Amino acid sequence: MSEWRRDPLTGHWTIIAPERAQRPYGFNEEGELLCPFCEGMESFTPGETFSIRRDGTLPNQPGWFVRVFPNKYPALRRDAPFLGLKHDGFYQAMDGLGVHEVIVETPHHAVDFSEFSDDQVAKVLLAYRERLRNFRMERGLRHGLIFKNQGMEAGASMAHAHSQLIATPVVPQAILEELRRAVAFYRRRRWCPFCMLLEEERKRAVRVVLESSHFMAFVPYAARFPFEVMILPVHHCASFLEETHLEDLARVLRRILRSIRKGSGEPSFNFVLHTVPYRARDEEQESYHWHLEILPTFLRMAGFEWGSGFSINIVRPEETAVRLRHFLEPSESG
Amino acid sequence: MSEWRRDPLTGHWTIIAPERAQRPYGFNEEGELLCPFCEGMESFTPGETFSIRRDGTLPNQPGWFVRVFPNKYPALRRDAPFLGLKHDGFYQAMDGLGVHEVIVETPHHAVDFSEFSDDQVAKVLLAYRERLRNFRMERGLRHGLIFKNQGMEAGASMAHAHSQLIATPVVPQAILEELRRAVAFYRRRRWCPFCMLLEEERKRAVRVVLESSHFMAFVPYAARFPFEVMILPVHHCASFLEETHLEDLARVLRRILRSIRKGSGEPSFNFVLHTVPYRARDEEQESYHWHLEILPTFLRMAGFEWGSGFSINIVRPEETAVRLRHFLEPSESG
Repeated sequence: MSEWRRDPLTGHWTIIAPERAQRPYGFNEEGELLCPFCEGMESFTPGETFSIRRDGTLPNQPGWFVRVFPNKYPALRRDAPFLGLKHDGFYQAMDGLGVHEVIVETPHHAVDFSEFSDDQVAKVLLAYRERLRNFRMERGLRHGLIFKNQGMEAGASMAHAHSQLIATPVVPQAILEELRRAVAFYRRRRWCPFCMLLEEERKRAVRVVLESSHFMAFVPYAARFPFEVMILPVHHCASFLEETHLEDLARVLRRILRSIRKGSGEPSFNFVLHTVPYRARDEEQESYHWHLEILPTFLRMAGFEWGSGFSINIVRPEETAVRLRHFLEPSESG
Repeated sequence: MSEWRRDPLTGHWTIIAPERAQRPYGFNEEGELLCPFCEGMESFTPGETFSIRRDGTLPNQPGWFVRVFPNKYPALRRDAPFLGLKHDGFYQAMDGLGVHEVIVETPHHAVDFSEFSDDQVAKVLLAYRERLRNFRMERGLRHGLIFKNQGMEAGASMAHAHSQLIATPVVPQAILEELRRAVAFYRRRRWCPFCMLLEEERKRAVRVVLESSHFMAFVPYAARFPFEVMILPVHHCASFLEETHLEDLARVLRRILRSIRKGSGEPSFNFVLHTVPYRARDEEQESYHWHLEILPTFLRMAGFEWGSGFSINIVRPEETAVRLRHFLEPSESG
């Protein structure tokens, strides 16, 4: 059973999960032939917790478009015996409570999400939303994070296109930082900083890659990496659980990923979906936007980035935006 | 000229440095033959700012043991025209002020720091201390960070053993987090949390790898990676600028690096030297220890780590410590 441990000097949490050491890597030729994420291989995975499938087909049988099941080598588990903090003098720990699910994004052995149809991407986004909703009232869980690693370079252990959900009893540090800052801004200005950012970016136009009816995709002002992109809902919406424009989002996401792929020549990337914590206060709901952060994986973290928390980006965000606009395909729906 | 930019949503700073895109990579065969870091190639680097060399030899000539010069492709520059914050509505930026130096650790084309003699490592540590001291009164600089990337996997662009100094007008986020937490602890307990940690680790013994007269090397309780090690002075000392036991530190560091190399089988690693900011307040001096963090480069950051700020470590820190003690060689001095 894994364990949450808190570093007494930094306050950061680490999950100590020796079980994860056993997980196989599915990038070799044999792995491809025996991919447990492919349609027809359902008996090789844990039982599904959710799927979008053809009418009349049964759970854990072929016929699905998107399929969700618990990670076979989970970093965290729902059946943790004890929910509270365990104090050991100077140190704090918790049992490895949490949820760790795999969202398989296609029944076929495809690996590049950016090549999916808009309709398939929309189904994946629907699965994200439904799984995040599913855990919102669960005992002890405070937040759900969706993330995707595409390519071995990006940390994926299986080639077949998939993403993951990890729901945790602690609000992630990265969310807390954004949220605290957003609430402080809101208290000063009576305005959501994400709404203000949208207005500023629209006015300057230089970092915007595309804007649809409901979403804006842009290169952040202080982007940490070349080809980093953020996608934000243009109308205030703190929680992805409430998002209803999934078809429009699918079109925007697919076009952006394809443009990054062409513009960078690099097939591997990570994305993460940041949404407000479960049971957020009104003030938090007023101050935050859910958003997608897309991080291509060219440049590794090295000593400077680790040691400082600063990033060095060798491409100006405005130049990245020019390149991404250049490689943007027209939307399928016109 | 590079630029500091602050992300309005997270508060994190990024250095936008297009000049860095031009730097060569010295890992190919030609690069090896023409390595500008080797003795005899001094005219291919910027002029030296510091060296430890044989008596009677001249600057920028052969005869050195350790040699320091400005990075030819600097992320930051000392001649930034303007020191203040530039506000652009919602956004904050600064000119790319700072210092970026290269510390070449050996005149020979050696790549593995762990194979150096204790005496050579002590010379490198002396260069670190002297260069950090050199910038402590410099206009606009608030902190100096020393870091080392060994191996292309760890982000090094040159094979020849070297480390780097980056001094910045902003205290790095990673230092600020530790410092704020340390000061808060000190206010509550009238005790430095690093001193308490040393006592706790000594008492439990399970994570300690070695302790010398002046330093302890241990695996952190919530280590983010297998084979992560921290080295701390055992007597309270906030600033590496005041550290006088460099020979003992050299022995500890070399033995630890060699044990990590043997225990992990992995030659690439990063280390970072965290020291209290320049002109720290008394309370900060009382609350902090300088320390070395050694981070082997096995596992990449993937979407979960990026998106959450959590880490997943698949090896229990206590097991890493057992392994590192097993591979520890006796000290050269007995």
